Amino acid sequence: MSATELKVQLLLTGNEIMSGDTVDSNSALIARRLSELAISVHRKVTVGDDRELLAREMATMADAADLLIVNGGLGPTIDDLTAEVLANVTGVGIAAHPEAVTHLEQWCGRRKLPLNAANMKQALLPAGAKIVPNPIGSAVGFELMVGKCRVICTPGVPGELAAMLDGIVADLARRLERPAQRSILRLQTFGLGESSAQQMISDGIPDWPPEVELGFRAGAPQMEIKLTVDSSDALPARQRCREQLEQLFGDHIIGEGDCLLGERVLELLRQRGATLTTAESCTGGLIASMLTRIPGSSEAFHAGFVTYANAIKQAVLGVDAATLASEGAVSEAVVRQMALGALERAGADYAIAVSGIAGPDGGTPEKPVGTVWLAWGSREDLRSCCLRWPVERTLFQTMVAAAGLDMIRRQLLGLDSEPRYFSQRRA
Amino acid sequence: MSATELKVQLLLTGNEIMSGDTVDSNSALIARRLSELAISVHRKVTVGDDRELLAREMATMADAADLLIVNGGLGPTIDDLTAEVLANVTGVGIAAHPEAVTHLEQWCGRRKLPLNAANMKQALLPAGAKIVPNPIGSAVGFELMVGKCRVICTPGVPGELAAMLDGIVADLARRLERPAQRSILRLQTFGLGESSAQQMISDGIPDWPPEVELGFRAGAPQMEIKLTVDSSDALPARQRCREQLEQLFGDHIIGEGDCLLGERVLELLRQRGATLTTAESCTGGLIASMLTRIPGSSEAFHAGFVTYANAIKQAVLGVDAATLASEGAVSEAVVRQMALGALERAGADYAIAVSGIAGPDGGTPEKPVGTVWLAWGSREDLRSCCLRWPVERTLFQTMVAAAGLDMIRRQLLGLDSEPRYFSQRRA
Repeated sequence: MSATELKVQLLLTGNEIMSGDTVDSNSALIARRLSELAISVHRKVTVGDDRELLAREMATMADAADLLIVNGGLGPTIDDLTAEVLANVTGVGIAAHPEAVTHLEQWCGRRKLPLNAANMKQALLPAGAKIVPNPIGSAVGFELMVGKCRVICTPGVPGELAAMLDGIVADLARRLERPAQRSILRLQTFGLGESSAQQMISDGIPDWPPEVELGFRAGAPQMEIKLTVDSSDALPARQRCREQLEQLFGDHIIGEGDCLLGERVLELLRQRGATLTTAESCTGGLIASMLTRIPGSSEAFHAGFVTYANAIKQAVLGVDAATLASEGAVSEAVVRQMALGALERAGADYAIAVSGIAGPDGGTPEKPVGTVWLAWGSREDLRSCCLRWPVERTLFQTMVAAAGLDMIRRQLLGLDSEPRYFSQRRA
Repeated sequence: MSATELKVQLLLTGNEIMSGDTVDSNSALIARRLSELAISVHRKVTVGDDRELLAREMATMADAADLLIVNGGLGPTIDDLTAEVLANVTGVGIAAHPEAVTHLEQWCGRRKLPLNAANMKQALLPAGAKIVPNPIGSAVGFELMVGKCRVICTPGVPGELAAMLDGIVADLARRLERPAQRSILRLQTFGLGESSAQQMISDGIPDWPPEVELGFRAGAPQMEIKLTVDSSDALPARQRCREQLEQLFGDHIIGEGDCLLGERVLELLRQRGATLTTAESCTGGLIASMLTRIPGSSEAFHAGFVTYANAIKQAVLGVDAATLASEGAVSEAVVRQMALGALERAGADYAIAVSGIAGPDGGTPEKPVGTVWLAWGSREDLRSCCLRWPVERTLFQTMVAAAGLDMIRRQLLGLDSEPRYFSQRRA
């Protein structure tokens, strides 16, 4: 069977996932690993640790799928039901599996633990099950045919699942008739909304080829555009789509893959051996943090200033007291002085400075919550603008910090066009 | 109908969830909010943006449930199918809903955006649908009866869902026959792991009353302990549990509800009219950002310094060049000088200073990746210690920033006991 023909479903079990106390990251991990083989998960069901619910789902799902991956319920406690329920569904008995017993003896032996009844429960598997080794934990995984569906049961502990997936993916790859041809291209953008991007593509690329699947992932601050093809025959078509997208969105595209704004800015700085400093009021250290979370950032980022209070803007960055008094802290004059002060004190080539009103308090009729002045650039080419981003405080901080980084990215790339978000956000 | 009788199912849609590109945290949020009303989710199904699959699940789930919450697929793009599919399943038409149109007009108006066709799509709802307001985003939610099942459709953008859930939960509370007596007490902790907390409770409180349900939610940097009771009769028992937990975990408990470390530190500072400054190397602005994301932080936080490079530690904070040369940047002497320099330049009462090796590069045999020196306190009472937190870069930054805030919290509270994590982390 080929990767795209394979019908795959995923069954997750666990009261802690149903209650919301635990966010399920296992199913995303399984899906990502399967996608390496161009295998998609068609459907995912999650239920609590309940015999009746589990049995019903297992039977229905095994009936509809070629491959069913079950995650969770393999542990030693009474609410771990997967083996027992699967045995009932297939109508086979449950018995101690010799390989699983050996694994448990060794596992307990290494830890000088007695092999007690609770642990032994993990070796009780449906008759005929084939072991899937667990290189980390006590509970082995196992595999069983239910009708014509291959059912693979995996542990809920994320590290154990991850370790087990290597073997499962390798085994699936061997079983597939045709090798995987799936290829995913992800483009990171800043300053585009999902709806305007969609509209621009509909208007601008009316002949979008059906073999290139288009997807969006809206995040804050970035939005990802994803182009998936399931055959290498479609790669030229995707290349044309990519070129058309670059025409359409141009300088709103930051980079490929997982590329972050901070990463891109640091890369551009490194290319010219330049350094950047930050002078932050309303973003309160977030721009510095978005840069320093990137490994190797110390090469191009040496110093940042969080100058929240007016007295600090004067004392630390040398902002003029008279300007603060006459223009206010959220003003073009002040934000430019902040940038120049930071450039001088850090001995840096480029600076980003921001001063704004993050809210919820502090707004005035002239300068409502969401107003922010940004200055960016070098001593010789310092630019500035006022934007209005009237959103919740932490989202405001995130978007403004990203806008500051985006301004520097545009300047370093020598882009002179105005970003689309200026037309909406300009105050 | 009472909360426990209500059969609730959850349908999630989105190719980005099925592909594993996005980890679904929305269903956990929905489950946690419903649990406030003692409502449990019985079953959760996730499918991609596929008309046929969505239609089949909606029909089956609405048939089995009293309440079906659909999440995702409300946006403006062609792969947002929820409204269209639900209309087909119920056999009603789809039409522009006047309230949704008004919402979109206002939403676009505030952003000076044209109300284009892609956006207008978000106002096309099944006939007879009742609007669920979206206070943040462009896509309204909506509610429709399918047979005897109430179907509520919600947006996939987490912030928009969160904002919408307040109204949904309040509305559900009004519809329930017997008022919910469930009461959830959440305690925020820092510096405890889930398994050690569990073990300490098993050992220390053997007579834990069965009517007080105990839950944990491990996050970074905080861990939440949750005490749930389903009747007001159990409140005195819970109060006793709380007192026993306070005995057991003492000063590892930061506060109640959603309390964040940064929030607690700012509150303690405000109580004594004191200010705090930061001098950050390896955390790169994250401590400042954790403080300034809290509304009102400007009262107690005026200035922060990100001194990534040695030359900047000297120029900006006055760290001694000889000390840097002899001890290295990651040393007790340097981190204490950073704190003193920041205290002086900011005119602050308290400081947190950190210098460490976040990795992945930069480690040495003596100071491996994960090593960090912290200094905290006032001019008169400046303390310091070295910890080792050998985890991935951004998790290291998060945990170290939180540890710095926790040290100040402990000092402001006059706590002299050593936190438990010191015994594992102390270098």
